[in-house]
Amino acid sequence: MAALSERKLKKSAKKFLKARVSELADAQERLYADDRYSLLLIFQARDAAGKDSTIKHVMSGVNPQGCQVHSFKAPSKEELDHNYLWRCWKDLPERGRIGIFNRSYYEEVLVVRVNPAILEGQKLPDEHVDEHIWAERYEDINAFERHMVRNGTVILKFFLHVSKDEQKQRFLDRLNEPEKNWKFSTSDLRVRGNWEIYDTAYQDMLAATSTEHAPWYIIPADHKPVMRALVGHVIVQTLTGLDLQYPTLSDEELARLDAARTQLMNE
Amino acid sequence: MAALSERKLKKSAKKFLKARVSELADAQERLYADDRYSLLLIFQARDAAGKDSTIKHVMSGVNPQGCQVHSFKAPSKEELDHNYLWRCWKDLPERGRIGIFNRSYYEEVLVVRVNPAILEGQKLPDEHVDEHIWAERYEDINAFERHMVRNGTVILKFFLHVSKDEQKQRFLDRLNEPEKNWKFSTSDLRVRGNWEIYDTAYQDMLAATSTEHAPWYIIPADHKPVMRALVGHVIVQTLTGLDLQYPTLSDEELARLDAARTQLMNE
Repeated sequence: MAALSERKLKKSAKKFLKARVSELADAQERLYADDRYSLLLIFQARDAAGKDSTIKHVMSGVNPQGCQVHSFKAPSKEELDHNYLWRCWKDLPERGRIGIFNRSYYEEVLVVRVNPAILEGQKLPDEHVDEHIWAERYEDINAFERHMVRNGTVILKFFLHVSKDEQKQRFLDRLNEPEKNWKFSTSDLRVRGNWEIYDTAYQDMLAATSTEHAPWYIIPADHKPVMRALVGHVIVQTLTGLDLQYPTLSDEELARLDAARTQLMNE
Repeated sequence: MAALSERKLKKSAKKFLKARVSELADAQERLYADDRYSLLLIFQARDAAGKDSTIKHVMSGVNPQGCQVHSFKAPSKEELDHNYLWRCWKDLPERGRIGIFNRSYYEEVLVVRVNPAILEGQKLPDEHVDEHIWAERYEDINAFERHMVRNGTVILKFFLHVSKDEQKQRFLDRLNEPEKNWKFSTSDLRVRGNWEIYDTAYQDMLAATSTEHAPWYIIPADHKPVMRALVGHVIVQTLTGLDLQYPTLSDEELARLDAARTQLMNE
């Protein structure tokens, strides 16, 4: 019975996602034609929660010309020589487009908080590094997002929430299946060893930066098809709520089209 | 007597500036070696107040490798497709360097406020364009600057304050002297015609965005040598207040230098 129910759940979630993917393709075209809003999707999660595969499955129907994914790894020397929001800011989506951040500036209050050596490497003046630094970063991030929203960027933030048991299972799969070996890094176990420390960092971050203008969606990640269906649902709901319109032409512009039609016909 | 006094004032101001220019060159080297702070200088002013010549005279001693000037003209199509801070953000100075903005994002609450057609061209969603927009822009700009300061950028903002009479005289010079003709644009008179409307925009902006972390310096601009001397003074005072240090080496690093010296001597 349990197995059957699981199969039905999976099938149902996949069917649901398929419908959302198709609606999303349509909504993206309207977003582009309407040309007032942009959409920024931020994905944060622990290792093996399924960020990459979610982006792949949910966004598989969109036109890549209007959608760009940025994965933020360890910062370069040039990036470290600027403030920590700088490198993400450069890659914000243009009006009419979808930008996806696979990890983001939120790492600045996660991995940087858990590893003091990284903060030290940012070479900040001493007077700006004290016990208030994380609260200040939350404040700056909220202000940064508020500014984007005021200027037409819609922001959706997804925290894909995988359990400790499920992560263990997925790591074992990566270790046991040769074609998944490349996905495993020995540093993954070191991060897993800090599970509770990260827990605190995640909880603080989610509480401090889930705002009305840019809410966090905490998506259960142990069941992949359900997770993807939920993410797809939130994105489509948000876009359809924007009242995106194809531009309509003025009478004058329509008259110009008439003239062009006539000219072509008379050639 | 008045003429003599003016000559003395000019001479004294020039001498004062020369000393500051030399100190600034030294401070810049420390800023670079210290590698924790960056310096952002913002210049705003009415036409013919002397922004360009002030930048030229005050910064003439600095090493251009550590100093970059950005002049912000009308935004490009790509820039308009992002939020209005985006194009300035890209050009923020790296740690250890000086960045100069000749005009800046402050135009977004000046020329954009005075000319509603420009705001319309920004294609913002209707719900974000209402009577609060200028207060919101001040708030966002203050938050943006606070974030920069927290991450090691020191910000100095100069409003070069030219009088209406003096601007008239400088415009006439540009019209009368053939080698200055290129500096005059007929649109300058249109802007001058809106003197009082701009006055309101300047006053509101200065009141709302002069913060403890990023103050405005209102510099009288009718006397050019005095204006430049004042600007030079503020910059040097600020840099020398930062306690910039040349890096010192650890005993271990000094031992490595000793070894290198020995190796070279034994070649």
